[in-house]
Amino acid sequence: MKQEIEAPEFSFPLRVYIEDTDAGGIVYYVNYLKFMERARTELMRSLGFGKDFIFNAELMFVVQQVSVQYALPAQLDDELLVTAQPVQVGAAYMLLKQRVLRGEQVLVEGDIKIVCVDKNNLSPKRMPKNMLDRVRSYCAGEKT
Amino acid sequence: MKQEIEAPEFSFPLRVYIEDTDAGGIVYYVNYLKFMERARTELMRSLGFGKDFIFNAELMFVVQQVSVQYALPAQLDDELLVTAQPVQVGAAYMLLKQRVLRGEQVLVEGDIKIVCVDKNNLSPKRMPKNMLDRVRSYCAGEKT
Amino acid sequence: MKQEIEAPEFSFPLRVYIEDTDAGGIVYYVNYLKFMERARTELMRSLGFGKDFIFNAELMFVVQQVSVQYALPAQLDDELLVTAQPVQVGAAYMLLKQRVLRGEQVLVEGDIKIVCVDKNNLSPKRMPKNMLDRVRSYCAGEKT
Amino acid sequence: MKQEIEAPEFSFPLRVYIEDTDAGGIVYYVNYLKFMERARTELMRSLGFGKDFIFNAELMFVVQQVSVQYALPAQLDDELLVTAQPVQVGAAYMLLKQRVLRGEQVLVEGDIKIVCVDKNNLSPKRMPKNMLDRVRSYCAGEKT
Repeated sequence: MKQEIEAPEFSFPLRVYIEDTDAGGIVYYVNYLKFMERARTELMRSLGFGKDFIFNAELMFVVQQVSVQYALPAQLDDELLVTAQPVQVGAAYMLLKQRVLRGEQVLVEGDIKIVCVDKNNLSPKRMPKNMLDRVRSYCAGEKT
Repeated sequence: MKQEIEAPEFSFPLRVYIEDTDAGGIVYYVNYLKFMERARTELMRSLGFGKDFIFNAELMFVVQQVSVQYALPAQLDDELLVTAQPVQVGAAYMLLKQRVLRGEQVLVEGDIKIVCVDKNNLSPKRMPKNMLDRVRSYCAGEKT
Repeated sequence: MKQEIEAPEFSFPLRVYIEDTDAGGIVYYVNYLKFMERARTELMRSLGFGKDFIFNAELMFVVQQVSVQYALPAQLDDELLVTAQPVQVGAAYMLLKQRVLRGEQVLVEGDIKIVCVDKNNLSPKRMPKNMLDRVRSYCAGEKT
Repeated sequence: MKQEIEAPEFSFPLRVYIEDTDAGGIVYYVNYLKFMERARTELMRSLGFGKDFIFNAELMFVVQQVSVQYALPAQLDDELLVTAQPVQVGAAYMLLKQRVLRGEQVLVEGDIKIVCVDKNNLSPKRMPKNMLDRVRSYCAGEKT
């Protein structure tokens, strides 16, 4: 399953508030990673893995690697669209391509690798079968 | 033990980084509460309740009430002094007066009430006797 | 204009993400102040003072005083409603009552005083007449 | 000046506070980027570019690219050492290798590219000659 896949690009809108900015007058670059995580969370929720999954499962996702390019800054009060598109799905990890858009402009792009781990000892753990199946069918372009 | 007490004022220095600021060019007002918590944490550490206490005890402190006045803004790169002074100590709570200073200037002042709770159910719980004794002897001005 | 007024309670929904939580497993108490500011921003936007106002005006609002009571903690993935209700409106300030709700439960309540200041020197400044008129008509319960 | 250089590794100590953690019980991965920026800021200050530089110069540094690997999580109350080591220095940019250490353990590693820009229009701009000279002499291992 290491081949690159062509999954649909999930997208999630958000607004820039003063809490997101810094003294440079623009969004503090660290905060785009928060925006990207909101989009990943909403992607998983849209696949059926929301609150119940978060609180009942013995596992969670941790970020293992991020690579982010900053092209243009977002400003206070901007309406942004943040995308999340799986590009590799393994039994215990996902690699996602994510973008932060303002209209047609790509402000920030990143590759984020998240790993499924045991909540107690943080060691990698296979995703539950229903989750893995659901993620893969999403990637294959199937609607629920 | 409801009478106001005259405890020593503990103080803790910190530096303002870009992460602390907002697009107004000054420290984001919410972040002074983080600064105040750092000072409370260091006060407790100075009394012997650091990492071991945090990880072994079945309790933690939660903030129940804050009242903060903002007089002057701190700026990027400022060196600040944050104080913490207990003004009431109950069996399961503390009320502290805290200030954020830049040299002689008082930038921010607050009253913070923290409550000792059970880690599992978040219900109020007496502080352990050794902690309560230690806090009270600090308030009485005794050195360790 | 110091008498208490009975303005409509504006409300704004939001979701709790992992970025909002702390190692206690609940929303970091400082972050409710961010939630409250989002609601104030959206209230002002609903009255016509959004991006254009923010970038063109020679003024901004700063927080002068907050008083917050924490009753119950919000958790990861909660859907919250944050309210903002002006209770005093002066020429250069507003006092708002704000609440953070989860369904019927009031988790957090606060009184927030914001002051209109000159962007350059941060000294208090009257709100523009159209803003003050608009805020007062909102408080009087008039629809736009 | 594109060849890799062997500059000294600057290091800066810090403490993990509750504000830095998330509901997973560990440091929120986004926050290591804040830690890394504190270390870069202190490196520049140690070279003579502190507050005066920040407020008088017509330029600032923005982050253009980050690549970060997370190996092990930091926990509440950990004492960490954050390093910053220039590995490429151009007229208008620096590439730094940064690490977050807990004792002998490397928790997080990253490559961060920062670009010097004009404060007003955010377009790239050569560093002032005295800064570029000072950075290069640091990289060459010369003491001030």
